[in-house]
Amino acid sequence: MIKARIIVTLKTGVLDPQGKAIESALGNLGIDGVGSVRQGKVFDVEIEGEDAAGAKATLDAMCEQLLANTVIENYAVEIDNR
Amino acid sequence: MIKARIIVTLKTGVLDPQGKAIESALGNLGIDGVGSVRQGKVFDVEIEGEDAAGAKATLDAMCEQLLANTVIENYAVEIDNR
Repeated sequence: MIKARIIVTLKTGVLDPQGKAIESALGNLGIDGVGSVRQGKVFDVEIEGEDAAGAKATLDAMCEQLLANTVIENYAVEIDNR
Repeated sequence: MIKARIIVTLKTGVLDPQGKAIESALGNLGIDGVGSVRQGKVFDVEIEGEDAAGAKATLDAMCEQLLANTVIENYAVEIDNR
């Protein structure tokens, strides 16, 4: 079993209304000094088997086809070597 | 300016219907060998100033009060030292 974490974030320049809403909510809560917030998604994935190269290929296919919209989002895959 | 990343994930045992939907969509796409998927949230935050201890306190307050539901979610804060 290979564990991996995929992080999907909006590309620079893409408007992030959720992040803006969080910034304004923080202001209302009295939490100051926060410059900017941008929200993304994280996926913790377990891949069967022990083939790290195959797992990387599967994870990339998952991101390209399902998890990330590569027009407006970047993704990063981290394979956990513990 | 201090950059930090907050990762909010569901606690073990909490049902994750979004993750289950992704697992079934992967099957439909013909991507096999994926054992489990669990979805979480990531927040990229910029904190004003250079006070790392103060930034850590601000980030913890953000998580406790707004970003994470600590009944069902865990959060991790990583301060970027680049």
